[in-house]
Amino acid sequence: MEKVRGLDTPFFLVNKPTFLNNLARLSNKIEGLGTSLRPHFKTVRSLDAIQYLLPDKTSPVTVSTVKEAEALANEGYSDILYAVGISASKLSRIRDLNSKGAKVRVLLDSMEQAQILNQFCQDNHCSIAALVEIDCDGHRGGINPNDPALIQIALLLLDGFAQFQGILTHAGESYHCFDQISLRESAKNEVEAALKATKQLRSVGIACEIVSIGSTPTAHHYQNLDGITEVRAGVYAFFDLVMAGIGICNINDIAASVVTTVIGHNKDKGWLIVDAGWMALSSDRGTENQPRDCGYGLVTKCDGKQIGDLQVTTANQEHGIIEAVNGCDINFEDYPLGCRLHILPNHACATASMHKQYHVFDTQDQTYDVWTRIQGW
Amino acid sequence: MEKVRGLDTPFFLVNKPTFLNNLARLSNKIEGLGTSLRPHFKTVRSLDAIQYLLPDKTSPVTVSTVKEAEALANEGYSDILYAVGISASKLSRIRDLNSKGAKVRVLLDSMEQAQILNQFCQDNHCSIAALVEIDCDGHRGGINPNDPALIQIALLLLDGFAQFQGILTHAGESYHCFDQISLRESAKNEVEAALKATKQLRSVGIACEIVSIGSTPTAHHYQNLDGITEVRAGVYAFFDLVMAGIGICNINDIAASVVTTVIGHNKDKGWLIVDAGWMALSSDRGTENQPRDCGYGLVTKCDGKQIGDLQVTTANQEHGIIEAVNGCDINFEDYPLGCRLHILPNHACATASMHKQYHVFDTQDQTYDVWTRIQGW
Repeated sequence: MEKVRGLDTPFFLVNKPTFLNNLARLSNKIEGLGTSLRPHFKTVRSLDAIQYLLPDKTSPVTVSTVKEAEALANEGYSDILYAVGISASKLSRIRDLNSKGAKVRVLLDSMEQAQILNQFCQDNHCSIAALVEIDCDGHRGGINPNDPALIQIALLLLDGFAQFQGILTHAGESYHCFDQISLRESAKNEVEAALKATKQLRSVGIACEIVSIGSTPTAHHYQNLDGITEVRAGVYAFFDLVMAGIGICNINDIAASVVTTVIGHNKDKGWLIVDAGWMALSSDRGTENQPRDCGYGLVTKCDGKQIGDLQVTTANQEHGIIEAVNGCDINFEDYPLGCRLHILPNHACATASMHKQYHVFDTQDQTYDVWTRIQGW
Repeated sequence: MEKVRGLDTPFFLVNKPTFLNNLARLSNKIEGLGTSLRPHFKTVRSLDAIQYLLPDKTSPVTVSTVKEAEALANEGYSDILYAVGISASKLSRIRDLNSKGAKVRVLLDSMEQAQILNQFCQDNHCSIAALVEIDCDGHRGGINPNDPALIQIALLLLDGFAQFQGILTHAGESYHCFDQISLRESAKNEVEAALKATKQLRSVGIACEIVSIGSTPTAHHYQNLDGITEVRAGVYAFFDLVMAGIGICNINDIAASVVTTVIGHNKDKGWLIVDAGWMALSSDRGTENQPRDCGYGLVTKCDGKQIGDLQVTTANQEHGIIEAVNGCDINFEDYPLGCRLHILPNHACATASMHKQYHVFDTQDQTYDVWTRIQGW
């Protein structure tokens, strides 16, 4: 397309048909299992893309920052889950959003946070709904699904000025699974942890309106979602090399790349120097401990065709160094100064975060859009 | 200060007196050696800070993107060096800046680039000045100072429509030096490579108006700069853990930190969970191969006092996990939910790049400013 050639490099390119295909694949899967998807906005973070992620303004959405919640609420989206442990300092912004008609739920995993939330609601004559975070695999936060503290926290919220609305868990350790069996086990374990928690609550008569689970690897491997009210996932929208390494997608499913220009040859060292460093690619090395370490990204031609042995092996601020790996040599004539290459990201959330805008191409219907990313907290 | 407590976390804080002290330290050193500093704008990238970096609008400055050059030229700064290998696609923006009165010089290291530049200048009835990049330590781009291609490139420019104005080298490998002797050697080697290149050019009667060298580690270790017309450095303005690890600064000289809030305790695992993940800290692991690996950053109290054994060991998008290292335990009572900590960056350029704004405090005269960062390319 003419437009892509006119843009200065480096820039973040979205292949729109691939993006839409990724969205459809997961929503079909989750809806096919009888539950609903609550997409995580943290990956795409653009209101220009929101119509594709959320069918309507009441569609459930997950955010990782209050800033995203504010942007979505401002556009009229109402069913928002802020899925990072709440701190007192963020509550007034949540209250303000709720007072304007949004329903922003918060997350917590301790009596202390529940007390803080109750106190804030009492002091501010408001009621904020909370989910309790359950730890299903030791990845980050949350309490054990069998921990009696779960009931105590739920009761504290139910008896106080805040609201208890359910539980949430996230199988973050699924990122370390590399075969279908362990992925299915991780998915099953995530479901079971959520159900254990709800069972414990039900045993004392506490209902869970929301039973929220999800991570991109597990979301693609659920077999049965009975008792689960929603699934969260984010990076599935773009996909990336980490997800390809885990086996969740193919390289061709990666909808995002950084377009870069060859600005130097170091023939003695076998280096192509390009104008995409970590400012454009991010410093994310998410494939470092995977069976295939992709450096700072794999290289494709402009038609999306992967160049087997080339990867970005070094990233400085505005320079990337591309080398052939596996004992291959670069044929420098194939990559003259000024030629353009695409770098597939290790971690699309991280690479997207380095860009204010995405350049979105639909090669099928020959359209081009610019999507603006919401920045900050 | 009241203001710092009112800001939502995470945010990027600049300790202004420390920042000013870092600037003064290097400019005094370089001026004391009889040459001038051409600060690299890529670290700070804020026009709000420019008055501290550049004494006046004719002060020399280095940039790593055309976007920075445009921002500076728009403010009237004229002496700009774009220190990334030039590609044809960026030349029209350089021409536009020069036609408005700026003098933006470009960098190249091949006959092919010199031909492209000449052709562009001929076609556009303009003349753009170039420096030739010299490779002093095998770090990235450039040609060997003794390579006869240097004379060929210079002559091609001199005989063509572009201009040849001198040479540039960068001791990027100095980042792998960990003692004073090797730092001094790296600094001396950088100077010598530059002088070798100018000697080769002089031998055929070609003068170098500009002999530009620099990296933050070497810049602090030059002994003699005879024959060098300018020194470039960027990260010295903020400093960071990588620089402290190399021994260029002390921890107390680090002028930048990310302020974060404790949002969770995992007492079983010995984890403090904070609201600064890689979105706020960057994924940079620049200390990974240093004698002291600082994870994703070291932790200080709000008064800047370092907490000896705490570091961010894991960074997710909006979560950081802080652990005590060296066999120590965290006393959780010291870090209640809601308490604030500061994270010192591995690499200040990378951490600053994650933020649209810097919150700049002068604890001495109790002033507060917001500096806006220039984003994109």
